[in-house]
Amino acid sequence: MTKTRLYLYDTTLRDGQQTQGVQFSTQEKHRIAEALDKLGIDYLEGGWPGANPTDSEFFETAPKFNATLAAFGMTKRAGRSAANDDVLAAVMNANTPAVCLVGKTHDFHVTRALGITLDENLENISESIKHIIALGREALFDAEHFFDGYKDNPDYALAAIRAAYDAGARWIVLCDTNGGTLPAEIYRIVREVIASGIEGSRLGIHTHNDTESAVAGSLAAIDAGVCQIQGTLNGLGERCGNANLTTLIPTLLLKPEYADRFEVGIDVKSLEGLTRLSRMLDDILNRVPAKQAAYVGASAFAHKAGLHASAILKDPSTYEHIEPSTVGNNRIIPMSNQAGQSNLRRRLDEAGIKVEKGNPALSRILEVIKAREADGYSFDTAQASFELLARRELGLLPNFFEVKRYKVTVERRKNKRNEMVSLSEAIVVIKINGQKRMSVSDSMDEYGVDRGPVNALSTALAKDLGPYQAVIDDMRLVDFRVRITNGGTEAVTRVVIDSEDGKGRRWSTVGVSSNIIDASFEALLDAINWKLVRDDVRPAGAADLSGA
Amino acid sequence: MTKTRLYLYDTTLRDGQQTQGVQFSTQEKHRIAEALDKLGIDYLEGGWPGANPTDSEFFETAPKFNATLAAFGMTKRAGRSAANDDVLAAVMNANTPAVCLVGKTHDFHVTRALGITLDENLENISESIKHIIALGREALFDAEHFFDGYKDNPDYALAAIRAAYDAGARWIVLCDTNGGTLPAEIYRIVREVIASGIEGSRLGIHTHNDTESAVAGSLAAIDAGVCQIQGTLNGLGERCGNANLTTLIPTLLLKPEYADRFEVGIDVKSLEGLTRLSRMLDDILNRVPAKQAAYVGASAFAHKAGLHASAILKDPSTYEHIEPSTVGNNRIIPMSNQAGQSNLRRRLDEAGIKVEKGNPALSRILEVIKAREADGYSFDTAQASFELLARRELGLLPNFFEVKRYKVTVERRKNKRNEMVSLSEAIVVIKINGQKRMSVSDSMDEYGVDRGPVNALSTALAKDLGPYQAVIDDMRLVDFRVRITNGGTEAVTRVVIDSEDGKGRRWSTVGVSSNIIDASFEALLDAINWKLVRDDVRPAGAADLSGA
Repeated sequence: MTKTRLYLYDTTLRDGQQTQGVQFSTQEKHRIAEALDKLGIDYLEGGWPGANPTDSEFFETAPKFNATLAAFGMTKRAGRSAANDDVLAAVMNANTPAVCLVGKTHDFHVTRALGITLDENLENISESIKHIIALGREALFDAEHFFDGYKDNPDYALAAIRAAYDAGARWIVLCDTNGGTLPAEIYRIVREVIASGIEGSRLGIHTHNDTESAVAGSLAAIDAGVCQIQGTLNGLGERCGNANLTTLIPTLLLKPEYADRFEVGIDVKSLEGLTRLSRMLDDILNRVPAKQAAYVGASAFAHKAGLHASAILKDPSTYEHIEPSTVGNNRIIPMSNQAGQSNLRRRLDEAGIKVEKGNPALSRILEVIKAREADGYSFDTAQASFELLARRELGLLPNFFEVKRYKVTVERRKNKRNEMVSLSEAIVVIKINGQKRMSVSDSMDEYGVDRGPVNALSTALAKDLGPYQAVIDDMRLVDFRVRITNGGTEAVTRVVIDSEDGKGRRWSTVGVSSNIIDASFEALLDAINWKLVRDDVRPAGAADLSGA
Repeated sequence: MTKTRLYLYDTTLRDGQQTQGVQFSTQEKHRIAEALDKLGIDYLEGGWPGANPTDSEFFETAPKFNATLAAFGMTKRAGRSAANDDVLAAVMNANTPAVCLVGKTHDFHVTRALGITLDENLENISESIKHIIALGREALFDAEHFFDGYKDNPDYALAAIRAAYDAGARWIVLCDTNGGTLPAEIYRIVREVIASGIEGSRLGIHTHNDTESAVAGSLAAIDAGVCQIQGTLNGLGERCGNANLTTLIPTLLLKPEYADRFEVGIDVKSLEGLTRLSRMLDDILNRVPAKQAAYVGASAFAHKAGLHASAILKDPSTYEHIEPSTVGNNRIIPMSNQAGQSNLRRRLDEAGIKVEKGNPALSRILEVIKAREADGYSFDTAQASFELLARRELGLLPNFFEVKRYKVTVERRKNKRNEMVSLSEAIVVIKINGQKRMSVSDSMDEYGVDRGPVNALSTALAKDLGPYQAVIDDMRLVDFRVRITNGGTEAVTRVVIDSEDGKGRRWSTVGVSSNIIDASFEALLDAINWKLVRDDVRPAGAADLSGA
């Protein structure tokens, strides 16, 4: 049996950015787009050129993708030609291979929101699609409010998508813009659209999660015959979010009902990177990953019920709908860490640390990780701290230096010109190979700007590391994320620091404390220690001994 | 047309407690049960008597509910009679009007997990149900792994539920225990079960969210003919959670496809308490509420896209599937879009600030917001800071107090027992109505735990606010989020603080600085000022003047 090809269209960078509180930088858009491209997504919608500087800059600086890059915009306005519409021109000027235009299909919106006649709207759709095609691009039509429109006035809703279809749009995407249409109704309406003569191979679906049914609504549309699915990573999007591709992708690839009938552009093997991809997005947004997310959540394969856990030990398929490693996730069983060891060895191996099977340190490392995570640490997002923790347990972490004490002062007061100004000072006392070293720094950068207490502390700490100084001179702190989380029963502060060095390496370390400065300091220490280990620096004491 | 009655069965207290990290106290179980009972739920499953002390205590101390209280347990084990099974006896001893027993229906689990014969299992089901009925209770049978079992061996799965049905169980609940069955398949299988001769009026559905389809799976089962729906508040539950009643309830009541065909025991009017109920559960669990949750999330009716926001101002139904107030939620039109002055006036109006059209302050406010956002502020997520900013421009923000200076010290060193310990101290100097007040605090909480410099600063600031002290005494800091962002060309730190007070209000404020302590302090100041404004506190100076 030949399988039907389904096309996945990602709109994380456009509709995903409509999430309250989400605003990607151009650089973040690039990181996300590259990861989606690597996964094997078919279409990447980059934004609305002309609508804001970030979207425009993204298209200007976009590299060559395997995916088809799409720019988003709206159909031309009434009273001017498509070629003379400046908003549409800005979209076309992004020079993307595909252009997706949203247009009205609900009569109420045409008259109420646009204030134009129903016929003018049909002409705007038709002319806009023709314009895109005349300029040699692939045309997509996002049929806004299609389902609500169809329920109110099926003839007009069909006429609107027919205008785009007859004008040659490659895809007519049926949008449940307000997110209120339930899956059974989506199924019924898509069937009726196809029965009206529009080919399913040119239909797409775009759902929202306002009834918690966006994923199921997309599946219902596929069952009814559409061939393109629009969604976002982690279900980002306006209001309650869009259809979650992080869920839909593994369902389409792993569930026989879909995998037997359809094929997608993503390889099953690539799914192993899915959990990491989901976490990367949370990390960019400084969000706590949703533990209960389908497939990729940290709890998605956690078996807490006693009956479940004991059965899982006999056979994991007793209480799991898929094998967690297929999506790069892990099983969590409170009473046993058997499942963890091979996984741990693989992660250590990736960090260049070879540990033979059955080494008792492996279960010790898992225990320590478990205890630390209960205290609020997160090693998922801090690979370098995980490596140091493992090295410590394996006896592979040299004691480069010891911190004796530190003190930080933050003061805010009026200066001589009667302005409120702040200044921080930090004193750090360390011991290297028996020798005490005391350093002090304030928080003023080279431009006279106060950079705050963590910076003062970081500068003081890195000011005199004696024999290691040359190695750490090219390090710099590039990102710093703080979150209140639970450590046992107490709220604690978790700090994750990203560092970079002159070799272009970037690494993340974590610190946890009820005190934000302590948590930062712990992460700073890990950052330095990781650099010293990775650069194969010999600890000062060891050097002395060898010379003795 | 007579409507079919659907029965809602809540298992928040039992399956909901299988959520990783969730463990209710008996008092918390009582609070949740009372709220569910007040909402109008039909069945309340309180736990598994005998499985743990909290569950047993809950039943011992349970008041009289309108809902039918159910105890959960499992079918009797092989080789003994129902009356002689001590696990079952503990369940019966809770003396609940209803008893729900889980039993195997998947042949693989009978032989693999239980290690008994297929016939023994059928007898266990039948005898257990008869035992419950003989003791005068309502009997429910949770058909574990029913859908997976039916796919592997339909005859045995049907025989298992038939055993319970023929024994007189009021309800046969079809469970998708592993959460991997998709809605279309649930629909098909339920239809086949009914076709086999089991009445839909005695069937229930119990789904899990492992493919993000638990809600849609429940709806599919209703479409196919079941009349009981099991689920949890906020979708708590094992792994990815159970079917979310917080979503299902408004869907059943507000969506014509269901409301026209079915009736439930909950009144539409009660839905207005739904958002509060959902937040109450998060509060008990000390969880940050999911912003994008359907119906009840803080972002569920947030309209960020410029096109949406301007249409919403003309008519909210343009981009909303229901009216937010029907579920006790609110519409949000974030400031960061360009919907402009009318949008701004509407937001101010919601905050109780009336501004007439054309007031020049409106364009000043928009300018200030734009400039601040360019500096790294985010008013999307900090409504309270937005209100203060607007009040300041409108001349409606009293000058309650002035901060003259502050100083924070963080010190980490060895204590007498040679352990590394940290302590912070903060000194804050403020002026209220010409009078200087100096407060000092350290970071130690009542348990002797260091809570860090922001806490010390917050405590010092709130220690002596003179005439305002009584008003701010019920405030507490409930969340604290930090992010490095761009302010112009410099990296700056943005701090967002969530505060709560004794009236159950929660508000968010923002501070931005290159110095994390300064940014936190700014957000703290806004939090206090907002509280003083909202509680209609008269500034100390004004009181004096009026008295002069």
